[in-house]
Amino acid sequence: MITGKNYIGNLLSSIGKVNFKTFNPQTNLENTVVYSEASTIEIEKAIELAEEAFQEFKNISGIRKSEFLNEIANEIEALGNKLIETYCSETGLPQDRAIGERGRTIFQLRSFANLVKEGSWVEASIDTADLNRQPIPKVDIRKMLVPLGPVVVFGASNFPLAYSTAGGDTAAALAVGCPVIVKSHPMHAGTGELVASAIIKAAEKTNMPNGVFSNLNSSGIEVGITLVKHPKVKAVGFTGSIRGGRALYDMAAQRPEPIPVFAEMGSVNPVIILPNATKNKGMEWAKIYAGSITMGSGQFCTNPGLILGIKGDGLTHFIKNLSEEIVKIEPTCMLHPNIIGAYETNKAKMQTQKGLQTTATIEKEILKNYGRQVITTVEGDTFLNNTALHQEVFGPFSMVVQCENTEQLEEIISKLEGQLTGTILAENDELKNYTQIVSALQNRVGRIIFNGVPTGVEVCPAMVHGGPYPASTDSRFTAVGINSIKRWVRPFSYQSWPNELLPDELKNENPLRISRFVDSVQTQKALNKS
Amino acid sequence: MITGKNYIGNLLSSIGKVNFKTFNPQTNLENTVVYSEASTIEIEKAIELAEEAFQEFKNISGIRKSEFLNEIANEIEALGNKLIETYCSETGLPQDRAIGERGRTIFQLRSFANLVKEGSWVEASIDTADLNRQPIPKVDIRKMLVPLGPVVVFGASNFPLAYSTAGGDTAAALAVGCPVIVKSHPMHAGTGELVASAIIKAAEKTNMPNGVFSNLNSSGIEVGITLVKHPKVKAVGFTGSIRGGRALYDMAAQRPEPIPVFAEMGSVNPVIILPNATKNKGMEWAKIYAGSITMGSGQFCTNPGLILGIKGDGLTHFIKNLSEEIVKIEPTCMLHPNIIGAYETNKAKMQTQKGLQTTATIEKEILKNYGRQVITTVEGDTFLNNTALHQEVFGPFSMVVQCENTEQLEEIISKLEGQLTGTILAENDELKNYTQIVSALQNRVGRIIFNGVPTGVEVCPAMVHGGPYPASTDSRFTAVGINSIKRWVRPFSYQSWPNELLPDELKNENPLRISRFVDSVQTQKALNKS
Repeated sequence: MITGKNYIGNLLSSIGKVNFKTFNPQTNLENTVVYSEASTIEIEKAIELAEEAFQEFKNISGIRKSEFLNEIANEIEALGNKLIETYCSETGLPQDRAIGERGRTIFQLRSFANLVKEGSWVEASIDTADLNRQPIPKVDIRKMLVPLGPVVVFGASNFPLAYSTAGGDTAAALAVGCPVIVKSHPMHAGTGELVASAIIKAAEKTNMPNGVFSNLNSSGIEVGITLVKHPKVKAVGFTGSIRGGRALYDMAAQRPEPIPVFAEMGSVNPVIILPNATKNKGMEWAKIYAGSITMGSGQFCTNPGLILGIKGDGLTHFIKNLSEEIVKIEPTCMLHPNIIGAYETNKAKMQTQKGLQTTATIEKEILKNYGRQVITTVEGDTFLNNTALHQEVFGPFSMVVQCENTEQLEEIISKLEGQLTGTILAENDELKNYTQIVSALQNRVGRIIFNGVPTGVEVCPAMVHGGPYPASTDSRFTAVGINSIKRWVRPFSYQSWPNELLPDELKNENPLRISRFVDSVQTQKALNKS
Repeated sequence: MITGKNYIGNLLSSIGKVNFKTFNPQTNLENTVVYSEASTIEIEKAIELAEEAFQEFKNISGIRKSEFLNEIANEIEALGNKLIETYCSETGLPQDRAIGERGRTIFQLRSFANLVKEGSWVEASIDTADLNRQPIPKVDIRKMLVPLGPVVVFGASNFPLAYSTAGGDTAAALAVGCPVIVKSHPMHAGTGELVASAIIKAAEKTNMPNGVFSNLNSSGIEVGITLVKHPKVKAVGFTGSIRGGRALYDMAAQRPEPIPVFAEMGSVNPVIILPNATKNKGMEWAKIYAGSITMGSGQFCTNPGLILGIKGDGLTHFIKNLSEEIVKIEPTCMLHPNIIGAYETNKAKMQTQKGLQTTATIEKEILKNYGRQVITTVEGDTFLNNTALHQEVFGPFSMVVQCENTEQLEEIISKLEGQLTGTILAENDELKNYTQIVSALQNRVGRIIFNGVPTGVEVCPAMVHGGPYPASTDSRFTAVGINSIKRWVRPFSYQSWPNELLPDELKNENPLRISRFVDSVQTQKALNKS
C-alpha cells in the first residue's frame, strides 16, 4: 500500500537516486519502506503541473471545491487503521493522539468545505457607478479575493496529520483555489504518502485538474530550497523551528519576485503567575502545569517553557509543588532520535547557564528515545541579562523566573521575543490591578489566556495561531481557523466590467446569494439593475 | 508659517547640521525656506515618543480616533490657500490638481474617521465556551484586530497630499491605533510641514498622546534607513520607485525581527486593444489615451505605459491616430529637475533599444522642466526577447506592441511583471472570445478595467491599488480604500478572559453595537449571558 514514491500530480514517480527510511522511536528501529527523494526533474514537473492546474482550479466553483475537500476527508477516513498504525510507527506517539489528530484534520477539511460552499469568504465588495457625479463620473468597481497561485506546504515533524500533507495549510490553500505542493516531512513519509493518496483519489473522483496536488519526499533541505526559489511558486506555509522558518523566509524575500512565507515557528509561551494565584491555587496550578509541560513529551509549539512569577513564599512553594508533580509523570517517547538529541543538547546548554538551577528531573533509567522532563528556576536579574535563557528548549522543559517585583516582571515581558501565546494565572479580583502587565504581554503575543494552559489550540474562527516574530514571520495572519485562508489570497478589482462576464460572486443578480458589501451596506440582496 | 523644522512629536526641532531647500520647477528657482534634516537624535526621540504613545493610543476608542481624524481634516482645510500655494511652488502642478488632491486627502481622512467611529472594522469574532463538549470542554475564544505599533510612512514625490504626510497610509495607520512617523519627501518639505502642523494641532485639540505623530525632514536616504532598521518600528508604507521600494523591503526583511513593508511601486499598466476596438473605435481611444498618457505629465503610477494590440490595419491606424493626437497636447511641467532628468535618461535608453520606433514626439522648443510626450512602437517578437522594453519610463511615455497573433499577445501578457492595473479595450461582443487573454491578464494585475483608462484611482471600498510584485511588495493588501487598514493590524485572541476586562468590542453586552461573528453567525446582538 505504501510505495515510497512521490506523487507528481496524479502519478507515482521515483526517478531520483536518493533514498531514505523512516524510524520507529518506540522500537528504536528503522521502518522497512524505502522512500525515493524527489529529483530536480520531478520537482520541476510538479510545479509545472501546479501552474497549469491553477488556470483551471482558480475558476472552479465553491461547491465543487467543497466536494473535493469533503472527499479528501472521506478518503482519509477510508484509510482506516493503516493510517493510524503508520502514524504511530513513524512518531512514537500513542494511538489516541493519532486518532485525535486525524479527527482534527478531518474537521479542518470539512470546515473549509463548508466555508467555500457558502461562498461569502471572498469578501465581495461592490461600488456601483454614478454617472452624474461631479466633477467626474464614478465608475463601477467590484472586488473579491482570488487565489495567489501554487502554494508550497512543508510538513511539520510534530503534527503528521493536522499540520502536514492534508493539514490546515493545505486545506486552506485548496479551499481558495491554490494548487498545493507538499514537501513531505522525512520523519513521517509513510503517513504523508497515505494521506497524499487520499488527496489524489479525491481529486480524481471530483474531476480536479491534474497537478492540483503533489507530494514530494525529501530527506534533506534541497527539495525545499528548490521549491521556495522557483518562480512559479507563489507562497509558502511552514511550521517548525525558527532556524528552518527563517531560512525559508530569507530565501523567499531574496527572490527577484519575493513571495509571502507564513512560517509558524518557535515559542516559549510565557505564563505569568500572579501572587494571589500562587498563594491560593499554587498546588492546583502546579498539577495542571506539570501535565501541560509534559503533554506529548513537550513537543508542542504552545508548550509552556517559561513561567514568570514574583519572588516570595508563594512562588517558592509553587516551584516546589511543580517540581514534585512533574516527576510523578511517566516520561514518554519523543518523535525521533534527532529530536531527542536536540532536546538533550539544548537542555544541557541551558543548564550550564550561570544562575540557572534545576529543581526537578527524572533520575531513573528510562526507555531509549524517551524524554526526561525538567524544571529549572532563575532570578529575574539573571534572566534579563542573559538572552540565552530566553530561547526555546523543544521538549518537556520549563523555567520559572523569580522576578524582584512587578516592574521587573513588566520589563522582562517587554523584552521577550514574539510568542504564540501568553497566559495569566490570577485570582478573580487580582487581574484588574495588573493592566500594565496585560498590556505588555499583549504586545508580545498572538493569543492571551486567562487561568488555563496554552497547550490545546481550538480550531475555531476566533482562534489566532501566530504572533509577533519569531512566533510567526507575519503576525497579520493566523495559521489556524477559517481566516487562515487569507494567507493565500489577494484582493482583485474589476472596473466597469460587463455583468455577464463577471464571476458569479460579483454579478448583479448575486446568483450565489452570498453576503456582499454593496455601496457600503452588507447585504445578500441582488443589485437593482439589469 | 513654515519653519523648516521637524516635528518630533508635538515639538518643532532643528538640531541637525544638514540643510536643504525645495525647488520650484515652474520658475526653475529654489524656494527660500531652509529645511533642517532630522538628526539621529531627533529620529531616536521621535521613535521613542511613538512607542510610548502607542501604549495609550492602541486603547483609545474609535469615537476619539474619529474625532482626531476629522480634526486633522478640519485643520488641513483651515490651512487654506497657503497650502495650495506651497504645493504648487514645490511641484509645478497646477492649482486645480492641488485643490483636487486636497479634497481627496480630506475625503480619505473622513472615510477612515467614519469607519472607526462605527467600529465593526475590528472583525470581532467570538466562539463561546461549551463546557459539556466531549472529549474535552470548549474554551471561550474572542478575536479582534489590533494595531501593529509605530508605522513609518514615506512621502511620495507625485502625491504631496494624498500619498504623503496625512495621506492614505497615515490616515489608515492612525485610524487603527498605530502612531505614525513620516519621512517627509524632500521635494515638498513645505507642504509636508504645513500638513504636519495640522496633524499636530488636531492631536493636541483632541488630547492624543504626544508622539502619535512626527514629521522628519530628509534630503537623502539616511533618515529612511535609520527608521526602517529601528527595532521599535513595526511596519512601513512607501509609494515610489521599484528601486527605492525594494531597497526598503530588503532592509526590513533582513532585520533580526523582519517587519512588513507595503511598497506600492512601478507599473506600466498594460492596455490591450482588441481588433474590433481598433477597427470601430480606434480614433476615439486614441484621443482618450493621448489624454491619459499625458495627464499630470505622465507622473502617475497608473499611467498607461504599454499598449498591446494585434498587428493589422486597425492597429496601424490606431498608432497613427494616437501619435497625431498626442502631439496636439501642450507639454506640462514635471515635478522636479531630477524627475525630468530621469525621464529623459530612461526615454533615451528605451529609444536606443533595437527595433523600437518613435512615432510621435514634441519637436518644438518648450519651457525648462516641461516633459515632452513620446509614443513608440515595437514588434511582438522584439518585445518578447528584450526585457529592457518591459521597464517603466516614468513620465508621458507609452509604447505600442504589435503582436503577431492572439497566442503571442497571451504569451507577452504572461511574461510581464506584476502590475497595478490591466485594461481591455474591446467591442461589447468581442471580450467573451478572449477569455484566455483576460485570465492571463488577471494573473498579472491588481485591477482590471474594461473600456476605460487606468489613470484615476477611485477611493472606495471595492478598489484594489496594489498587485503582484513589483506593483507592490505584497499583493495581499491594497493601498487605497478602507481595507488598506489591514496592512497595519494583526488578529489577537483572548481565551477565557473575564468579560469586564475585555475590550468593549468583545464584551458580552456588545456596548458598541458593532457587527460581530458570534458562534459563526454575523450579528449585532449582545450575547445571551451575564
